[in-house]
Amino acid sequence: MDNCIFCKIAKHQQKAFIVYEDEKVIAFLDSDPINTGHVLLVPKEHFLDVDDLPEELLVHIAKVSQKIVKAIKANYHPEGYSVIQCGGMFNDIGHYHLHLFPRYQGDGFEWKDTVLESQCSEKIAEQLAKSI
Amino acid sequence: MDNCIFCKIAKHQQKAFIVYEDEKVIAFLDSDPINTGHVLLVPKEHFLDVDDLPEELLVHIAKVSQKIVKAIKANYHPEGYSVIQCGGMFNDIGHYHLHLFPRYQGDGFEWKDTVLESQCSEKIAEQLAKSI
Repeated sequence: MDNCIFCKIAKHQQKAFIVYEDEKVIAFLDSDPINTGHVLLVPKEHFLDVDDLPEELLVHIAKVSQKIVKAIKANYHPEGYSVIQCGGMFNDIGHYHLHLFPRYQGDGFEWKDTVLESQCSEKIAEQLAKSI
Repeated sequence: MDNCIFCKIAKHQQKAFIVYEDEKVIAFLDSDPINTGHVLLVPKEHFLDVDDLPEELLVHIAKVSQKIVKAIKANYHPEGYSVIQCGGMFNDIGHYHLHLFPRYQGDGFEWKDTVLESQCSEKIAEQLAKSI
């Protein structure tokens, strides 16, 4: 993908502060971090969503993500961490990326309250279960 | 863990709207959903953080999470999805759980803006890289 910034970073055509790299993935600091030590873990090949990833790559990303969380804990001793991946139109780059960052009380990163109308959970569960 | 609600759900001692279950994991509807179809994927054994998970379980969770995202897409045709896992004190239950839910424009689930003081990214990256 010629215009994808994460493809460019993966090819070392665009500067990034790299924290990990191997044949399949690259991890670097988010340029707009929630907290210091905010890492993005990205497959070198261009994919949009998690369900587009080949199984081998999915498994590799899971293993590397665990290592990154360990490193975040070892370096920052945070009160917690968050791991977030947004797909579809909520992937602002268009290239799969996993956010991993340390968390602290009052760091301002919070889930906004949402009010969901009452729902029939039984039907929803049945319907989802059929397609998993 | 006697008082853990997710351990109780895993043992079928507490009601939940289950969407997937196998020997290692159970997935059910979040009782306080961001959007309809908000699923929690939970290992049956009690662990707190992602770095506590044995590799086999970590890999299994990754594979099942991909299936759940596919099911969410197939059922809701959302504009996107989010997959989120919070650790440490930001794990409100104390038992590892992965949130997976469909996303829509204007669904009110947004990252709050945070203002992070300027940082020396080069040093941060170097330091993290050493421990990954």
